[in-house]
This record gives sequence, C-alpha cells and structure tokens, in this order.
Amino acid sequence: MSTTGPVPSPAHSSAGASPGTVLVVGAGLVGASIGLGLRPTGTDVVLHDASPTVAAVAADLGAGRLPDRRDDDAGPDLVVVAAPPDVTAGLVVAYLGRYPDAVVTDVASTKAAVVAEVVARAGADAHRYVGGHPMAGRERSGPMAARGDLFVGRPWVLTPAPGTSPAATALVRETAARLGAVVVELDPATHDDSVALVSHLPQVAASLVAARLVGASDSAVALAGQGLRDVTRIAASDPVLWAQILAGNAAPLAHQLRLLRDDLDRTLAALEQLDPDRADGPAAGGTVADGLDGGAGRADGPPVRVAGPVGTLARLVADGNAGRAMVPGKHGSAPTVYAVVPVLVPDRPGSLAALIGTIGEVGVNIEDLRIEHSPGRLAGVAEVSVVPAARDRLVEALTERGWSVPD
Amino acid sequence: MSTTGPVPSPAHSSAGASPGTVLVVGAGLVGASIGLGLRPTGTDVVLHDASPTVAAVAADLGAGRLPDRRDDDAGPDLVVVAAPPDVTAGLVVAYLGRYPDAVVTDVASTKAAVVAEVVARAGADAHRYVGGHPMAGRERSGPMAARGDLFVGRPWVLTPAPGTSPAATALVRETAARLGAVVVELDPATHDDSVALVSHLPQVAASLVAARLVGASDSAVALAGQGLRDVTRIAASDPVLWAQILAGNAAPLAHQLRLLRDDLDRTLAALEQLDPDRADGPAAGGTVADGLDGGAGRADGPPVRVAGPVGTLARLVADGNAGRAMVPGKHGSAPTVYAVVPVLVPDRPGSLAALIGTIGEVGVNIEDLRIEHSPGRLAGVAEVSVVPAARDRLVEALTERGWSVPD
Repeated sequence: MSTTGPVPSPAHSSAGASPGTVLVVGAGLVGASIGLGLRPTGTDVVLHDASPTVAAVAADLGAGRLPDRRDDDAGPDLVVVAAPPDVTAGLVVAYLGRYPDAVVTDVASTKAAVVAEVVARAGADAHRYVGGHPMAGRERSGPMAARGDLFVGRPWVLTPAPGTSPAATALVRETAARLGAVVVELDPATHDDSVALVSHLPQVAASLVAARLVGASDSAVALAGQGLRDVTRIAASDPVLWAQILAGNAAPLAHQLRLLRDDLDRTLAALEQLDPDRADGPAAGGTVADGLDGGAGRADGPPVRVAGPVGTLARLVADGNAGRAMVPGKHGSAPTVYAVVPVLVPDRPGSLAALIGTIGEVGVNIEDLRIEHSPGRLAGVAEVSVVPAARDRLVEALTERGWSVPD
Repeated sequence: MSTTGPVPSPAHSSAGASPGTVLVVGAGLVGASIGLGLRPTGTDVVLHDASPTVAAVAADLGAGRLPDRRDDDAGPDLVVVAAPPDVTAGLVVAYLGRYPDAVVTDVASTKAAVVAEVVARAGADAHRYVGGHPMAGRERSGPMAARGDLFVGRPWVLTPAPGTSPAATALVRETAARLGAVVVELDPATHDDSVALVSHLPQVAASLVAARLVGASDSAVALAGQGLRDVTRIAASDPVLWAQILAGNAAPLAHQLRLLRDDLDRTLAALEQLDPDRADGPAAGGTVADGLDGGAGRADGPPVRVAGPVGTLARLVADGNAGRAMVPGKHGSAPTVYAVVPVLVPDRPGSLAALIGTIGEVGVNIEDLRIEHSPGRLAGVAEVSVVPAARDRLVEALTERGWSVPD
C-alpha cells in the first residue's frame, strides 16, 4: 500500500508538467466539470462514480470516458477525488495505495481534517497527496449541471503539507490552471478559517432567514422582492451535503457565528429600546448621526457621545456597506474574465438585431449579452460581454458606426 | 387646514376614476419612477423635491414638469408623498391641509406609525389619506435610477383606515394599477409584520454577514463567490434611509430577530458539540439522518430519537429549503409579467444574430435576453423574454424554423 519513497512518474517529474491521464472519482457537478474542461486540452479523462448511471451520464455529456482495458496496464498520472466530503479522506488513502505512481488530489471544501487524516493513515504515500478546493459551484448539482468553464477565473486553493512533493504540487497546479482557475496556496487552517467567513457563514445566514418563512402567511411571502430572493438563493442547497460541510468546519464556523450573534444582540437591543411598548421614553431614540459620526471621540473635539439606538442601526448598515465593498466582482454576474461593453439601444423594432449584426461584422464574438428593458425611457442598455482583448476594438467600431457607448 | 367633511373632487368621485394632475413630493427613485410610469398614460405630473436639483433632473428625465402658473389656480387631484420615512407623516398632514380637495397617499415602507400620526394630527382631513407602500426598489437610489416599469408586476400595498373615503382608496388603487402594480389591501399592522419578515429581516441578515468582512484578510475575501455576493447584495443599501426604516418597524422586526436568534443558538450549540476541542467524544456527532427524519416520533413507530448535532445542521438547511421554496418568482430575475422562452444556440459564429433575426421576422418584440455561455458544451441557451401573449406563437415559429426550444 505504500511506495518506498518519492517515485515521480515521467509525466509529473518537472514543474509545469501536465497529466496525460486523469482519473476523476465522483462524476457530479465538480468532477464532470473538471472532465469537460480538461478534455479540450487533450487530456485523457477516465470517469468513476459510485453510481454507474452518474458516470455514464457524465461520459455522454463529453466529460470523459468510462474505464476500459487500457486502464489495466497503466494507472493514471493524477487522481482527482471529487466525492462527498465525508468519504474524501478514505478515498484519497485508497487511491494513493492503488496507484503508487499517481498524484492524488481532492476537492473537499474543508481541508484541515482531510489533510490530517490522509497524513495519519497514508504514511509515506502522503507525499503524493495535494489537498485542493476549487471555489466554484452552482445551485444545481449532478453532472447535468456541469460546465467546462465552471472554474474559469475562480480561486482554486491548494494546501500542500511540508512533506508534499513539489512535483506533485506542480502537477495539480498545472491542472487547475488548465481549467482557467486562479491557483492560491494556503495552509489548511487558514483555508478553513477563510471559507468559514466567506462561504459557510453566508450559507447559515441564508438558511436561517429562509427557515423563518416556513409557516408564514401567503399574503406575507407575496410581498417578497429581489432582496429576499438574493439573500435566500443559496438556502436551496442540498441539506445532506451542507450538513457534512458545516460539520467538517465546526470550530472556525462557530467562531464566526459567535461574532455575528454579538452584532445581532446589539441590533436587537437597539430595536427593543425603540419599541414604544418597551422603551423608557422618546428620548431613547437618538438620531442617525449618533451612530455614523459618534462612534469615537476626537481628542480636541466634543466629548464622546454614546450612540443612540437609531445610530446603532445606522452603524450596522454602514458596516455592512464597508464589508460589501470588499466583496470582489460585485458589479455583475459575468465572469471577471470578460469585459462588459454597455451600448444604448434605441427603443425601436430591429435595434437589437442591428446591434448584433454590427458586432458580427466587426468580427467580435459575443460571450454573454444582457438587456435591461425599460419602457418610459428613450433607450435600453445592452451589456455585451467580450474577451478583454476585443474590448477596445469593439468600442471603437461601435462608436464609429454611430452607436452610443457610455463610459 | 381642514374641510368640513368629505368633498370629493369630480376627478375622483367614482371608483376607477384616474387623477388628471398628480403632485409627486420627493423626486428620488420611487417618485421619479411614478412620474415616468404615469406620463405615458396622459397624466399631468408635477414634481417637487426639497432639492431643486433633484426635481430638475427628474423633470429632464421625463418624469414630469416643475410647478408653474397653472398650479396657482388648481390643486392636484392626487398628492404622492415619496419622501424619506421620518418626514412622511408631517408632509402628508401638510398637503392634506394645503389642498382640501386632493387625495394624499405616501410610499413609506412601514405603515402603522405613519397612519396613526396622520389620523391623530389631520383630524377630519384624514379621510382623504390612503397609506401606501409600493414593494419595489433598486440597489441604486435617486432619479437617475428611476424606471417607468419599476412597479410592473410588483405588489403595491394600500392600508386604508376604517374612516378612509372609498373614493380616495379607489383613486390611489387606479393610479397604482396604471403603473402596472398588483394592488393589495392590508391593515397597517399586518403590513408591518409582513415586511419585517420578507424585507427588514433579510436586510439585517445581509448587513450582519457583510459587517463580518470588515477587517478580514485579502486572501480570505479573494475566495468569495456568488453565494456571498448574493447574500450581501442588499448590504450596499443606504445607512441613513435604512436606519429610519428599521427603527420605524422596531417591534415587529425585533420579534423576527428573536426567533432567528433562537435558531442561530441551536446551530451554534450543534457546531460546538462537533468541535473536537469542546465535544465530549466522537459519539456526539450523530448522523445527518437524525435530523432529517428524527424530528418527531410516530405513534406506531420507533421511539423518538433526539437529533444529533449533524442532524441539527441538516434540519436547518432542510428548513431553509422549505422556506426558500415559498419565495415567489424564484426561477429568474425577469419580471413575472414576461414569458421566458429558452432556445438552444449552436456554438457557431452568427448563431445568435440568426436567432435575433428570426424573432424579428416573426414580429415578436424581445423584452429581455440572457445568454449562458458554456464552452465545452455543444450549445448555449438563450433565454428570450417576451410578453406572455406572444409566447406560444414564438415557440411555434422557432420550432418550425428548426430552432430547438427545450421544455
């Protein structure tokens, strides 16, 4: 079950080498997307799944091939374990043993526990294991939801341990890069703290808000708008998968939830002060300004003011503004790899067809297109996504031909 | 400052009448959108704003006209107070006094306090006041973000009091209907309880999650994905406006927040049980199934099982699934008034232009269009939004011409 030392195969003996054959274990959304993305690069992708039907569907979609006689002779250069988190470590250990020349990586969304278990159980084989976590997903799961560009422009975290072979890390890094991902190396604990904040905390918050709707009156939910829809979108996630993910990152997530609960308690105390049935009097109200500029006193200014409850609420929303401003890619849903060119489209029949025709004449490929329809205004705005290299050429050509391209 | 009794003007003396002249007080997002939406119906819209610049910008956008000599002779039939919530009641009372023949409505997002203050201060004039709340908004504010179709397909709550003139309610109802809104009548307290759940609770949750990002490391926020973006989108809202809104609905919102905190405390307790540094032992883990099917015992079944911590987490996400499924219009961002026709577009240059051309030949107007670009698959899907009446005709025509229109 273990080799006697580092025996890198020729295919991954140098940094930047790419795998000839990749075995994807688990042909769901992530596994099938890896196959769809690697196949056009000439990689031989073999698909395995505990469900033969899932593997067959992924193969039919073009994500790879099912195992055949070829695979009896030669093992894969790389095994990607893309299975549920609670079986990941066991599968990694098993495949390290089965293919003594292969590098093994995984895609589990928490890393410290998986890495620790592999190191403890795989012995010397562990030097061929590189922990990984592609930060990409969709609301839908399964191979039917797979996309070859799922990882384009997305972070792909690698968590090599001190004993990990640099050649193994280089092979996984090259594979992730071929899928268009932005490779980031973190130690497992830092990774887990980070995803507790940016992934698991929002999931719990979305589920908590959505759970409050159970039993609500039809007339109440009929008033729901885009805000509630956005906040609760990821509440549609799979309960079994997410219970595993949250449980696998219990301590870092609990830390974040305690901090959020402290802020919640402050918010609740402010609201209870403002409740006419609970408050001591109208003087308890305070003003918005108390919260926005009264948080700290200046040495040469007036004495520190204690924020009133309205100020506390304004401070919460303002802190939310500051946090929201840190979220990358906040101005649109198009992948950041595309440039977005806005074009004014007159509200006349044929305008959109004329625009599309013009872009075709210019020879620029439309990667994505969104139109905001706005009756009552004189023109709509079409947002045309193109590869960044084509952006300037398109803007120039459209402007020459009389289209209005706002800054 | 008050009339001696109900003196409906001719313009609103019967149900279904529409106002000839509407005075919009506050020319921001909502006020200017009302103007943009009403003008094409032949309504004379007069704009007023505490900021003359805001009023002038809204007028330039086509939302209405500034007051002139005409307005010295005749008052408006309807006054819409679209000002910040903390000055709404005072403005309603002032305009009821200034125009003794006019109906006055408002757009403030909480109703019980506004209605109570108007009734207390306006005396007999209060019969001409109809509380209102159009449930529509955007991340951006101000007249530049206004759209004539902002209210199309959206709920517009009216909260008439027992003493409100039926003719006044009918006039406001007709005005909201002309803007494409779905008019709903609720008593003020039910309205406030409902928006606490579907609007204010998600706002607080979004702000709480976003506020946690302040001070986070760059490497952590670099891992953020669409989930965090969606959950925190509305955290970009205006702090001053939202502090007023939340404070104005303190008691119903505090009630919802206490319920959410109870669920949060249960989640936190489960995570702390799973933390290896805190738990009594691995037996504390439990299984996912404990939560999903062990919530209640059956009379003729096995004894009630107590859910383990993993089961508690699965139960939270499953409850979130159930709540999420209640959110209306969850399958897309297009207004529900449009029908969405998905069309497979082959990944070849010119395919999209050919599709748009075909739709033009069929004579159907494209209201909205989205394309999902998916390299690695053989075709993309264009989602074409059209008016519902044109849907069947378009599907038939596209199918006849060889386009693939999946169900």
